[in-house]
Amino acid sequence: MINIGVLGTGMVGKAIATKLIQLGYNVMMGSRTATNEKAMAWVAEHGSLAQTGTFADTATFGELIFNCTKGEITLDVFKAIPKESLDGKTIIDLSNALDYSHGMPPVLNAAYCNTYSLGEAIQALLPQANVVKSLNIITADGMVNPQKCGQDLTMFMSGNNAEAKAEVEELLLQFGWQDIIDLGDITTARGTEMMLPVWLRIYGQLKSPYFGFKIAR
Amino acid sequence: MINIGVLGTGMVGKAIATKLIQLGYNVMMGSRTATNEKAMAWVAEHGSLAQTGTFADTATFGELIFNCTKGEITLDVFKAIPKESLDGKTIIDLSNALDYSHGMPPVLNAAYCNTYSLGEAIQALLPQANVVKSLNIITADGMVNPQKCGQDLTMFMSGNNAEAKAEVEELLLQFGWQDIIDLGDITTARGTEMMLPVWLRIYGQLKSPYFGFKIAR
Repeated sequence: MINIGVLGTGMVGKAIATKLIQLGYNVMMGSRTATNEKAMAWVAEHGSLAQTGTFADTATFGELIFNCTKGEITLDVFKAIPKESLDGKTIIDLSNALDYSHGMPPVLNAAYCNTYSLGEAIQALLPQANVVKSLNIITADGMVNPQKCGQDLTMFMSGNNAEAKAEVEELLLQFGWQDIIDLGDITTARGTEMMLPVWLRIYGQLKSPYFGFKIAR
Repeated sequence: MINIGVLGTGMVGKAIATKLIQLGYNVMMGSRTATNEKAMAWVAEHGSLAQTGTFADTATFGELIFNCTKGEITLDVFKAIPKESLDGKTIIDLSNALDYSHGMPPVLNAAYCNTYSLGEAIQALLPQANVVKSLNIITADGMVNPQKCGQDLTMFMSGNNAEAKAEVEELLLQFGWQDIIDLGDITTARGTEMMLPVWLRIYGQLKSPYFGFKIAR
């Protein structure tokens, strides 16, 4: 089993890292410091396959990297990691660049909306890595247990590299996803990032994050 | 049966107007001129319940109005209609403000994206009318025959006026929609208008417009 790095210790990072441990992967959960309380508690709970380190440690450790940092800080996190440690690696980007300055619910950060996306910005920052956008349109629990959010949901992938997308597809299948649509290159991440506003409004009306998108056809 | 005005003679206008005739409504299809060829051909085909006129004629005729004009011209169309003729009326807005200047597929017009929407712009222009955004996330055929695009699809409504939304819900039910989510006020149209980019990319991958969104929960 490969080593996987998970950047971020929030709800998304915890859900992904825990599922990967259950699947038998060696997982490092990364944060700003190697002694992050949430990461250390997670390691204590999950035993020998679980480790923690800085973002840079995690990038070096992982043969494949999940970006589970909040979209507001994602680019700063990647800028602080030595680029070479990510060369040739697949980065699965789950983040959304939300802007809370207009009140609730948040809007998207206008710099990464419509004619650009956070997925593209990460790819531009790390041209030797292979960024694949996915899983950003569902609550953390549902990412790794889609059936918790509904029957027969659809998940999207966007990325420039076919091999990287094949790796991501394999992981999505292990997470329980059965209907996966490859939307095309990383510019198609604009489309899935722009689903966040309607996701937030549906959440507001249903009063539960346990729902998901199915593309019927 | 009430009189319904349909602004626009394109695929969307024809699909809506034809379905309304089938349901027994009196329908006027409106365009820039009262002698639009497509509108006159449609009237010839659909008989005594079908009429054509200018946009202004259609606004006066309809007790309820469907906006089926292209989003690129929608605001100009409404600016050219005497405001009073729309006072108190429900306007069902199906339009999307697409911008083709960046190439294909189009992006959204940045002026009506993320922190604003075309639905809100129409409502701001016509404060005495009740704008309800709906049906803008599916191909024309599927608007009035949702089962053509998949089983058990979900449709959204956004609008400030509860009575107007009840009227629209009744029409959606007559069109064959069974799962309808009221997202809230007209600002929630931002969310559904921002679904267009992913719709366009899914269309590109499936090579067919006959698909739709289901909110599983």
